[in-house]
Amino acid sequence: MTGKLLDITKSIPTPFLLVEEQIIKRNINRIYNYARQHGFALRPHIKTHKSLYLARLQIDSGAVGIAVAKVGEAEKMAELGGLDITIAYPAIGNERALRLAGLSCKHKIRVAVDSEYGINELANAAARHKTVIGINIIFDAGLHRCGFSDPNQIIRLAQHVEKQAGLRYDGIQMYLGHLYGDAARDPQSFKQINQLWEPVYKALCQAGLCPQTISSGSTPSLEKTHLIRHVNEITVGTAFLNDYFVVKFGHCDLENCAARVVTTVISDVTPGQVIIDAGSKGLSAKQLLRRENLEMGYIPDYPEARIFRLHEEHGWLDISHCKNPPRIGQRLSIIPVNISLCFNLYDHFYLLTSDDTLQKERIQARGSYV
Amino acid sequence: MTGKLLDITKSIPTPFLLVEEQIIKRNINRIYNYARQHGFALRPHIKTHKSLYLARLQIDSGAVGIAVAKVGEAEKMAELGGLDITIAYPAIGNERALRLAGLSCKHKIRVAVDSEYGINELANAAARHKTVIGINIIFDAGLHRCGFSDPNQIIRLAQHVEKQAGLRYDGIQMYLGHLYGDAARDPQSFKQINQLWEPVYKALCQAGLCPQTISSGSTPSLEKTHLIRHVNEITVGTAFLNDYFVVKFGHCDLENCAARVVTTVISDVTPGQVIIDAGSKGLSAKQLLRRENLEMGYIPDYPEARIFRLHEEHGWLDISHCKNPPRIGQRLSIIPVNISLCFNLYDHFYLLTSDDTLQKERIQARGSYV
Repeated sequence: MTGKLLDITKSIPTPFLLVEEQIIKRNINRIYNYARQHGFALRPHIKTHKSLYLARLQIDSGAVGIAVAKVGEAEKMAELGGLDITIAYPAIGNERALRLAGLSCKHKIRVAVDSEYGINELANAAARHKTVIGINIIFDAGLHRCGFSDPNQIIRLAQHVEKQAGLRYDGIQMYLGHLYGDAARDPQSFKQINQLWEPVYKALCQAGLCPQTISSGSTPSLEKTHLIRHVNEITVGTAFLNDYFVVKFGHCDLENCAARVVTTVISDVTPGQVIIDAGSKGLSAKQLLRRENLEMGYIPDYPEARIFRLHEEHGWLDISHCKNPPRIGQRLSIIPVNISLCFNLYDHFYLLTSDDTLQKERIQARGSYV
Repeated sequence: MTGKLLDITKSIPTPFLLVEEQIIKRNINRIYNYARQHGFALRPHIKTHKSLYLARLQIDSGAVGIAVAKVGEAEKMAELGGLDITIAYPAIGNERALRLAGLSCKHKIRVAVDSEYGINELANAAARHKTVIGINIIFDAGLHRCGFSDPNQIIRLAQHVEKQAGLRYDGIQMYLGHLYGDAARDPQSFKQINQLWEPVYKALCQAGLCPQTISSGSTPSLEKTHLIRHVNEITVGTAFLNDYFVVKFGHCDLENCAARVVTTVISDVTPGQVIIDAGSKGLSAKQLLRRENLEMGYIPDYPEARIFRLHEEHGWLDISHCKNPPRIGQRLSIIPVNISLCFNLYDHFYLLTSDDTLQKERIQARGSYV
């Protein structure tokens, strides 16, 4: 963290989440330029930041709408007004379906499903609210988390959607979460996806179910989306903020990381080690393997330091390789392993705006798990 | 989860945190009986649940006061009134020290320190608020996280405290976080602690600094506290609720786990696998190794199922060994790996009270990291 940033935030007690708007805007520019260049609609996934302020920034830059994972997130984001919201998640559960149907009375709502069970629940909820809910069928592009890759199964689901009065078949959604690092740079990976996807697309069109929206997502694969045929929308979240996972696997540089957790060294008793005031409650328990060493975040000002253990309130730093190791009372800023998990831990973040003022922002949809 | 519990909670959308008061009361009884039997004062550490309701339950059962990790937690808990609060954590940072001093104008406040730096900050803050703050010196019993084990260093700090007008030297605090599993059952482990601790205790008394409070803590070592000489107080948090880590290392049984995360199966496309609606945002990213398999929670109703991966909003279950595997739409209740991290993710929990009613309770100190 530059001296300027340390200075401007010195009266804020640690740990806290610090976000640089200028870096987000640079990321927005890069992502939107790529999307425009290839004719993709852009749908930012707000699960990463859960903030109305940042969602507004993304929308005003030209997004077609937003994506959320959970109904609670959609309800909070709906405060922005006039939104097109995709719930990119199988919204199973009667309560959830009813809340979605309620939302769809006032907003354009689309939900991802991969089961007749889910379709039936949403159809019933839509009927009760006398509304129409859009449906994306989930295509499994290789992650094997949700969705089918078999054309017949996908046609079966799309046809089942078509039969429901309160549902509107919109298209297909895929998530390339299995591709990161070299696999996300290898054209062969996308060839394999096309080998699965092309027969599905053709079969759908032959059955009169040509998808209107075909949305693909994941930060590592973002700028390779044009390698997947027929895709016309990108759904992405982390890429706007980035984190140490993204850096580690070569998908961005440190200067593209827009958010840090600022902490203080609270103990320096053991030689070669200091303890900071952010542990697994302030950074999340997410771990990453680097050079066969576990690490739980990266400290740009101390590249030789390693966060090697997290207790709930204590972060353990190996500083034995630092020439000028940090000392007790000193502030450090950390790029977390997973920025989405980190935002979900805090009620607020501090935004260094483009005109260099500091602004305290609520994370309105934090804790929306339903 | 018994059919009764599933029935009484069926209208609550998942995922949510469910706590059984009867189990907490059983845990309270066992812990307090042990403490009474050995003449220990009991100080529940509220970092585990961060709830005023549960803190009140612990206090009314005969606690001497409470422990917290962070100043924000102390501020929230102070709403209970008339509390004796130990901040069992090196409260480094000027803002933090000033807020502590502010609190100590109305409440009995004691802070753990392991540095002259920290003592000086607290002394300055106490002077500014014209108050007196109690101090516990941290003794390192073998974890090597915070605190010294060298008698001279501890005497140096205690003497430095004695020199400050606004500080009151109260005693010693130790945390046995290095002992779990067999190590926490082996009398040899406690012999080693005594070999470190006895010289410190004697040196302090010879220097006229005999500690009034000697507090030890950690769930796995809880019922072995009597093996450590001169200890007169127990500080413990997790043992009141327990979690899968505690079960796994043999320190409690499943029926002593008072809290579960209730989830729904949202996808069952891949054979031998289902996806649930709690991932690393609903269960925390904490992992545990069992029989060389990573696992992220335990499902008592499906002991053959294994939670083997967590994405942010998706939990991955291997159900290939289940005779009657769970199906889409079905609810499952999970004992999380770390219950303290889990409470810190939710704004509320649902309490099944002793008289079988369901009560929604806020987690008031959630997100208090300062």
